[in-house]
Parts: sequence; structure tokens; C-alpha cells
Amino acid sequence: MSPRQIEVSEPREIGITELVLRDGHQSLLATRMAMEDMVDACADIDAAGYWSVECWGGATYDSCIRFLNEDPWERLRTFRKLLPNSRLQMLLRGQNLLGYRHYNDEVVDRFVEKSAENGMDVFRVFDAMNDPRNLEHAMAAVKKAGKHAQGTICYTVSPVHTTEGYVKLAGQLLDMGADSIAFKDMAALLKPQPAYDIVKGIKDAYGQDVQINVHCHSTTGVTQVSLMKAIEAGADVVDTSVSSMSLGPGHNPTESVIEMLEGTGYTTNIDMERVYKVRDHFKKIRPKYAEFESKTLVDTKIFDSQIPGGMLSNMESQLRAQGAGDRTDEVMAEVPVCRKDAGYPPLVTPSSQIVGTQAVFNVLMGEYKVMTGEFADMMLGYYGASPAERNPEVIKKAEEQAKKEPITVRPADLLEPEWDKLVDEASKLKGYDGTDEDVLTYALFPGVAPTFFENRSEGPKSVARTEAQMKAAAEGQANALSGPISYNVTVNGISNTVSVEPA
Amino acid sequence: MSPRQIEVSEPREIGITELVLRDGHQSLLATRMAMEDMVDACADIDAAGYWSVECWGGATYDSCIRFLNEDPWERLRTFRKLLPNSRLQMLLRGQNLLGYRHYNDEVVDRFVEKSAENGMDVFRVFDAMNDPRNLEHAMAAVKKAGKHAQGTICYTVSPVHTTEGYVKLAGQLLDMGADSIAFKDMAALLKPQPAYDIVKGIKDAYGQDVQINVHCHSTTGVTQVSLMKAIEAGADVVDTSVSSMSLGPGHNPTESVIEMLEGTGYTTNIDMERVYKVRDHFKKIRPKYAEFESKTLVDTKIFDSQIPGGMLSNMESQLRAQGAGDRTDEVMAEVPVCRKDAGYPPLVTPSSQIVGTQAVFNVLMGEYKVMTGEFADMMLGYYGASPAERNPEVIKKAEEQAKKEPITVRPADLLEPEWDKLVDEASKLKGYDGTDEDVLTYALFPGVAPTFFENRSEGPKSVARTEAQMKAAAEGQANALSGPISYNVTVNGISNTVSVEPA
Repeated sequence: MSPRQIEVSEPREIGITELVLRDGHQSLLATRMAMEDMVDACADIDAAGYWSVECWGGATYDSCIRFLNEDPWERLRTFRKLLPNSRLQMLLRGQNLLGYRHYNDEVVDRFVEKSAENGMDVFRVFDAMNDPRNLEHAMAAVKKAGKHAQGTICYTVSPVHTTEGYVKLAGQLLDMGADSIAFKDMAALLKPQPAYDIVKGIKDAYGQDVQINVHCHSTTGVTQVSLMKAIEAGADVVDTSVSSMSLGPGHNPTESVIEMLEGTGYTTNIDMERVYKVRDHFKKIRPKYAEFESKTLVDTKIFDSQIPGGMLSNMESQLRAQGAGDRTDEVMAEVPVCRKDAGYPPLVTPSSQIVGTQAVFNVLMGEYKVMTGEFADMMLGYYGASPAERNPEVIKKAEEQAKKEPITVRPADLLEPEWDKLVDEASKLKGYDGTDEDVLTYALFPGVAPTFFENRSEGPKSVARTEAQMKAAAEGQANALSGPISYNVTVNGISNTVSVEPA
Repeated sequence: MSPRQIEVSEPREIGITELVLRDGHQSLLATRMAMEDMVDACADIDAAGYWSVECWGGATYDSCIRFLNEDPWERLRTFRKLLPNSRLQMLLRGQNLLGYRHYNDEVVDRFVEKSAENGMDVFRVFDAMNDPRNLEHAMAAVKKAGKHAQGTICYTVSPVHTTEGYVKLAGQLLDMGADSIAFKDMAALLKPQPAYDIVKGIKDAYGQDVQINVHCHSTTGVTQVSLMKAIEAGADVVDTSVSSMSLGPGHNPTESVIEMLEGTGYTTNIDMERVYKVRDHFKKIRPKYAEFESKTLVDTKIFDSQIPGGMLSNMESQLRAQGAGDRTDEVMAEVPVCRKDAGYPPLVTPSSQIVGTQAVFNVLMGEYKVMTGEFADMMLGYYGASPAERNPEVIKKAEEQAKKEPITVRPADLLEPEWDKLVDEASKLKGYDGTDEDVLTYALFPGVAPTFFENRSEGPKSVARTEAQMKAAAEGQANALSGPISYNVTVNGISNTVSVEPA
């Protein structure tokens, strides 16, 4: 920052939520980063002066037990120890918690209670349908635990989504006791003008004291401007990821957002030297996960398709598995159709997967000839109310195929108590340690938890490249050096098997 | 763009200069792109509705004859044919033309005349010292040729650079007949607030009708916001490069800049379908030049060092050549010292190379123990006036080492007529075709022109990877297939040297 001798007036301080420990690597490296690769950055992150540090939730829990043999609760406790001065923040899918179905309220209570107990401070609670009833119980649980309940609005664009609608939704979240409002733009659809209008709308309607956090991905290349406009409209905190773990399907770079405010009426008071150390740390780490890395840098076609990067690669692999890798364009055109039929839900976990998979089915087998159980549930209200009316003809097909009635109540109201049953089932698993945390792991991922419990004692298993593999890759010989390779070599008609491996 | 039924008022149209054919590949791929890889994009570029298409000048002329065996004039004529509906734009280094020294006014006249004759429309004329006297003759020549003379200000940050100073400089360029003002931010130093202040300052001082073009690189990750602020302040045209050839040391993505304006009081009226075709074209081309590609994506440290990416890699290779590859940090710290001693010139070709090389010399041999001829010239005024006073002690050392007097006149005023001599020398070269264009090639690059003339008839030689190399690289075997490789292979205790090369 250049020196200033005269400050006309005190600039307004903008908070930063650093995302690198959760959404940064989730978006760029398929959530594969091992805890060991984050530990050394924590002291600098803790001292930099962020408003909060997002480090848990989202897909990290799943990834920990599925790919990394890490106990997610242990990860949370480690972050708590390593970041003693920071607000720890998590992303929580409302009544879905971190799983893919609705849970009974008691399970939600237990999860939030245990998360708070293990060190979580700020709970960013959202619902893929933007149905406030799906947030209500989780928000109340956070309040009960004495923690920060951040009511979250997922941003999407459709004929039924308006500035007024978002402002109204913010009011509903404030009514249920939200300590702040997060505006979540998971697909980088938020353009500067709506960013300004919506933030200003919320502030105008509910007062300047309402804290607004803005979360944007950077895939479309427009959202750093949107953050600027949101700040001008009154946003209090914006989300960024350190530059060495930024851009593409990730987020705007922390340093750039800090620097862009110089000379404006806003400042962050972040310690840049600390940020540079964090940057340098992850600059070294990132190449270790190159095989998981997204290749997209900028893609404005998302404005038409609304298909986020992660969803696209999922659909492409589904298509390839069916020998239909050349039909991506048809599926991209079908997604908006399915989304309209479903009443224009935002596309975010799990709605993005549900809509995307149905679009694949429609292209491969004919429109709604075969409906997935999840899409039928969405059509019938089992994921909550949709932003607009759903297509009655498709609802009828869903009823027929799923043999279920449509509902209008809060989906979790139909769920029986399940905690005792979960405890009972978990306690039969080899390696179960008797804690509520383990019951929750089983509750969230019943298919993966058994294997994880059984192998947990073997400790974390990183999927990062080793030093030797990194070196080989740098020399452009990744394939040749990744292990012993046997060749049949024929010279002058005489054949021999020759084995080659790194010396 | 979403449909709008009611337009409250007509949005203001913002022009776009598409950079992909010149600065895009110059910044991202070391100016190595062959004409054959641009031809197929031209029809879509021509029809998209850009304000102008930058396609010539800068380092392309040098690269054409040095690396690609392409006649730069033939390239210009080809663009003229392929882009019949577009304003062709070039970057011209004032009295340096496209070379690295000052030329006599007659050479400047001839160069501009020939460029206009071969199809150039918009001449963006700049000087590395921001000395208006170095632009004056080239600007007059452009006006005389009936073409668009764009007076250019190089943006830099220093204790002596102020908004008022830039506004004053713009006035001087307008006084010499500039048809528009370009604000050139080659190092991505322009933050949103100064972007707003300077553009507004120029408009307020000289009228809203003064056309302002803003050119930013994206290296620091802040400049797309600066473009937005410049537009809000009244900028008329902004520079972008299509997304598949954007970001890093390059520019902000064309599609993102277009999209960010939706719903604001501004619009571009660009045909996005055409832009997507251009994007898809270069998405296929870019990997062919992967070996030339810059690895930097975001770097805000440039705000401190002011060292642009290209300059840094130059200095690093100079240091490595001297076995001092570990002294980059010292050089990075020395650059601002040399720049201050030289009176805070902007760092851009050729001042960036001159200051950077002197910084390397200072670190390796002691401060100003050995001065390069070019740095001594800069200290003595032979590149023009500097923005601030130069260090008198260093001027004295420059006088001693270069055995020259300091000057204060326009450098080119000291040059003898040289055209006839250049014709005479060029005409002795094998392969010289007798045209003024060839004389100019010789004038600009006397060291390279002889070889180029001699080999010209062999036709363009692309340095891009071939299809086979691309395929090999995709399979991670780039090295194994790039040429003959010898292995020692031992079978049953008998060792043989085996040479392998692509069949």
C-alpha cells in the first residue's frame, strides 16, 4: 500500500473469509487435500486478520472418510488447536447436514452440538431449494449452541428470481434469528449489477446493521467486479481464496481483493506479509494434486447453461460410462428443461447432481421415460418447496414411477425419530469408537463409514503425489518413472522382456 | 443476456479492442504464434463488432523475422484481407518504432506511411519515458496518413506520479492532435480508484467527447474491476483478449468483460456467438505453444516491485547465465533503486529491459561499477526526459563511463538523416526485395534482417508443436518423442546403447 499522509475519513473495514482450507481446494482439487498439507499454513492464516476461516463442511467430511482415511472430527479439532484466534467457519446443507438426504431433527441437533463442541464458530446454513423451512431447525440448533448462525441464500437466475424475492428471503432468514446473511453464488452467476441491487435491497429493507457476507466463485470471470459492487452496496464480508489456490472454478484471489480496495473508502486491515506466506505454502502444495485439478479457467457459457464446472465433469463421466461421451451438448441443453420442470431450483449440492443426472437419463432414454428416485422426490416436494411451480405433467409421471404422493409439508416433518436406531446400527460396526461423532459419520455416509471405521487406525492416507513423482513429472517423465515397466524388446529377431524402473 | 421488455434508457455503448492477435499471444506465449494459427479465427473476429482488432506491432515484427521466418508486412497485408470490416490496430513505440533505439524522423515517416499503406488504421503511439516529444513526430505522421492517432500514456506508480500529472499529459497529447487517448497499464498496476480518478479527470478537463481507451494486463488480478471503474468514469473503449487466451500476464477475458456489463448502464453490442467461435479456435491452438507459456496466474507482489512478468523471466535467465540464479530477490530489490535513480520511468519496453539489466549488473558487480550503454544513455537523457529528476551522482558516473554529455533536447533532434544510408546497406543484403518495407525491416533489426532476407523464400516456419508432439504430450511422453534419445540397456548382463526416435 502506498503511504498516505492525509486520511480524509476513516475507511470502512471489510472482512475477509479465507476459503483455502475448505472451498478453495474443494473447487480446484476435488476436495482431495490432506490435512498434513494444510497444517503448516495455519499459523499465518490465524494471524492474518481474517473475519473467519472456512475449514470444514461441504464435501470435506465425505472426502476425509472416503479418500483420505482421515477422521473429519479429528481434522476439526486440529484446526481448532492450530487456529486459536480465528473464527472457524463451516458450510452446512441445512436439514441435509453434510449428507444427501433429509435427517430427523434430533440428528440435526446432535450434529450441530458436536460441531460446536469440537470448535466450530460460524455455521453457514443453506438449502439447495432455498426453502427456509429446511434451514430453520439447523439455525435454531446453532443459536442454541451459542454460535454464529449464518442464514444463506443460494443465488440463481431464472424468470421467477428477482431482487425483491431475494430481499424477502433474507427477511425470512433474519426472522428465524440469523446472525448474518450469506449470499452464495456457487456457479459464478452473480453479475455486478444484481450484486449491487440485492445487497442494497437487503440493507435498505432491514437496516445497515444487518451483516451481509458474499460468496462468489470465479468461473465466469466477472465476480471480482461483483464483489466490488457488493461492497459499494454495503456488503460487510467477502469470501476469497489465497492467490495460489484461486480462480477457475475456485474463487477470487485474496491478495487481489485486498489490493483492489486501496484508495477507495474501504479497507481490509489484513496483514499482507502473512497472506504471502500462505500463498507461498500452497504454491508448493498445489502441484502435488495436479491430477485432480480442474482445467477450466474462464467459462461464461455457464450464464446460459447454469451448469457449474463440477456438475459438468460429473455428467461427462456418466455419459462416457454409457458410451455416449459425444452427447454432452444435448445434455447441456436438457439441464435447463429439467430445471424448469422442477420449478427452477438453484443448482447446488444436491440439486445440481439430481437435475444433472435426470438430464443424462432423458437424453439417453427419452424424456422422463426413467426418472431417478431423487428427481421424482424433488418433483414431489420431498426436497422442499421449489422457487416456482413444478410441471404438473412431470409430477404425475413422478407419482406413477415412484409410487408416492406429492407433499407440501416440511420434508423432515415426515421423518421418524432415528437417532437411537443410528446408534444401534453404528455400534455394530467394527472400529466404531462409541462416540456421537462416529454415529454422525455413520448417519451421514452409511455406505462409507463401515470401511472407514475398520481402517481408521491405519491413519491418514494422502492421495497427493510424492516428492519422487513430482520430480518425475517436472522432468516430463511421469509415466516412465511411476513404477517398474516391462517391455518386450526384439532386436535382430531375438525377443527379451526388459524391466525398467527408476534408478 | 436475459431478455428485457422495458429499457429505461438506452445504455451507453462501450467499445472493445480484441487483443488476441497481438498482445494476447505476445503476453502469454512469448509472441510465438504463427500466422497460420490465426487465419481461421479472422472471419469471426471481423464480424463480432469490436471497436478495433489489435494485430500488429509490439514484439510481433521482431518475432516474425527472428523466430517464424514470416514477413511481418505480409502478415499485415493478410490481416487486412481477412479483416475487411475491422479497424486494424498496432502498438508503436513512438520514435523507437518497433526497434530499440531512436530513429531519424524520416524513418518514422516512412514506417508510418508504409504501415498505413499496407492496411493499418489505428496507431497506438507510446513512449517508455512518457516524454511527449518522443511521440510527436509519429503522431503527426499518422495524422498525415489520414489514420487514427492514439496518444498513449503509460501508467506507473511512484512518488511523483499523480492523477493531475496524467491529466496534464493527456492534454499534451490532445494538443498534438491525438484522435483518442490510450491509458496503457502494461504491468497491471492500475487499481480501481486511480482508474476512475484519472479517466474522470481527463474527461472533466477536456470534455466528454475525448475518446479514452483503457488497456490493462491482468497479472495482479485487480484490473477487471479497474476496467469497470474506468467505464463508470467515462472510458469509451476497453481492451480484452478472448477467454481462451486471457488472464495471467495477459488480459481480462473478452466474454467476461462483455457479461459484467449486463444490467448496468453500459453495453457492448458484441456478437457473443462469434466470440465463442474465436474462443474455441484458440482453445485448440494454445496448447501447441505450451512450452512458451507463462506459468504466472496472479501475482500482487508486482505492486511492490513494479516488475512485469516478462521482465522478471528475462532477469532470471540473465542471472542463471551468470551462475547467480539464487540472487533474484536481490535484483528484485535493486530494480526500484535503479528506477528511482533514473527518475521513475514507467517500466515498459525498452525501459524495463534497460533498468532490469542494470539491476542485474549492480547486484553481480557492485552498484554502477559497470553501467550498460543503454542505462547510461537513459541517465544522460538520450531516451528523453524522465518523469522526475535523475540522481546527479549516477549521471556523473554515466558521463564518465559512456564518455558522453547529458542532453535535454528531443533525442531524435541529434540524429543525422539516415534513410539513404539504410537503403544503401539493405540493398547489399542477399534476398533484399527492393521495397521500402525491407529497408524498414533492416532499419529496425539490422542484426536479424540479413538472415531473414536470405531465408525468406523458404516460407513461414512455425515453432508450434506438431500434432504428433501434442498427442505425445497428452500421453505424458513429450520428452521421449521429441528427438533421438539414447539409453543404456542391460539384458542378461550385456550392455548396449540403444537410440530411440520417432518413426
